[in-house]
Amino acid sequence: MTTKLGPEELAAMQPKEFRELARRAEWTGYTLNACRNYAQNNLAIVPKDYAFEFLLFCQRNPRPCPVVDVTEPGSPHPKVVAPTADIRTDLPRYRVFIDGEVVDEPTDILKYWRDDLVAFLLGCSLTIDWALKAANVDFRLFGAYTTSIPCVPAGRFSGPMAVSCRALKGSRNVVRAIQIASRYLASHGPPIHIGEPAAIGIKDITKPDLASHDTRPPEPDEVLLWWGCGITPQLTAEAAKLPILITHKGGHMFINDLFVEETANL
Amino acid sequence: MTTKLGPEELAAMQPKEFRELARRAEWTGYTLNACRNYAQNNLAIVPKDYAFEFLLFCQRNPRPCPVVDVTEPGSPHPKVVAPTADIRTDLPRYRVFIDGEVVDEPTDILKYWRDDLVAFLLGCSLTIDWALKAANVDFRLFGAYTTSIPCVPAGRFSGPMAVSCRALKGSRNVVRAIQIASRYLASHGPPIHIGEPAAIGIKDITKPDLASHDTRPPEPDEVLLWWGCGITPQLTAEAAKLPILITHKGGHMFINDLFVEETANL
Repeated sequence: MTTKLGPEELAAMQPKEFRELARRAEWTGYTLNACRNYAQNNLAIVPKDYAFEFLLFCQRNPRPCPVVDVTEPGSPHPKVVAPTADIRTDLPRYRVFIDGEVVDEPTDILKYWRDDLVAFLLGCSLTIDWALKAANVDFRLFGAYTTSIPCVPAGRFSGPMAVSCRALKGSRNVVRAIQIASRYLASHGPPIHIGEPAAIGIKDITKPDLASHDTRPPEPDEVLLWWGCGITPQLTAEAAKLPILITHKGGHMFINDLFVEETANL
Repeated sequence: MTTKLGPEELAAMQPKEFRELARRAEWTGYTLNACRNYAQNNLAIVPKDYAFEFLLFCQRNPRPCPVVDVTEPGSPHPKVVAPTADIRTDLPRYRVFIDGEVVDEPTDILKYWRDDLVAFLLGCSLTIDWALKAANVDFRLFGAYTTSIPCVPAGRFSGPMAVSCRALKGSRNVVRAIQIASRYLASHGPPIHIGEPAAIGIKDITKPDLASHDTRPPEPDEVLLWWGCGITPQLTAEAAKLPILITHKGGHMFINDLFVEETANL
């Protein structure tokens, strides 16, 4: 069940308020427009036995996987970015992978929780979107895609990079978007590709396979910018055949307590 | 034994050439002036059993501990920043801690090497010094100090932050130094403190306890900038009582294959 909330009501909410809504499963949709000027995060939860290799995977692939908080084993509270939150209930929707297969897309993960689980919160490009809007940079968000770009492996983790795509018109907007995104390394930073989808293995831009927003075909005067995406860990699950991996569902992010500007590196 | 090399000869060397000199123990001194415009690194080597907690410690303390490369267990080759290097021999001098005590300061660590050791290369502010010099920003490097600032603990790792200190004259230089350093997050990024040593627990600036360069007292028109320092892991060794921790000796850094400019985040 999703409460009826208009984009402006959603944007005006405080993170704690929004998380409580998600906790009660009264908002189970995208977080795209939620909590204006607050930072959003991707989620990946792995057993402690995999935690070193996963953290190393993130360190080696900082564009798709910028780590912003790591919980203590068994603790659901992200002490750095939102100490009062519970990552088992406070996202609108999750994905549960068992032995590399999706087995569930629940609105909470209480029944899957174990004392040996470690949660990683990764930056999210929706954070950059607020910064683009604040600078009056217009863009159109397509969605998220699997690419042909291999991540640098670490231990049992390997797989292709996921990306998100935005279309912009005019050199001023393209240049400003790259400048602005570079200020938020913890939210994927600058784009990893500019231009043709085919160059990174994407056949049809109108068919995002991981999360979908505005999919009208690009116009001739639109430039495509592609960012590393925190859905990437989900693409490693199959190869790694993790006994359990729990993530957010694409576009259904964790909203933390930090202002977008608090997370800027410059 | 240290080969007689003037500052200009040292500055003109290529990283590979310098590492071979260190490998033959023909340079066992500071790397301060070595390999102009190439990036330098701190070193911390821990057993695999401690690797997750140490990587997490670095993730939680990015100013003193920015990770740039992590070797596979047992491999001495840093694949990302200098694939042909051997971190067991290519630094001018090391420190070996057993159960938290310094037991040796050798010029190679071949006899201490084990198949379960994981080497972490961390950024170094000497990298930023080349960028400051390239921008004609004059500064005076004091050395490295233990502070009263606690690091964020991770598992068995905790302890105070180490810092390095530079004195600059004139607002233009101070502002430029902060701007420039902010471009090199992988080399500690911006300063963590400006001004009085006492505010971060340093009693006597003329007596650096971790590495010493120019220690004439500050002049009245000098502003002190303090950076997180990669000697920090050494200060955790005692608390953690690691069975073995191997590091560089302060100021005796690893020189990698990357241009300073290649490592800039902006």
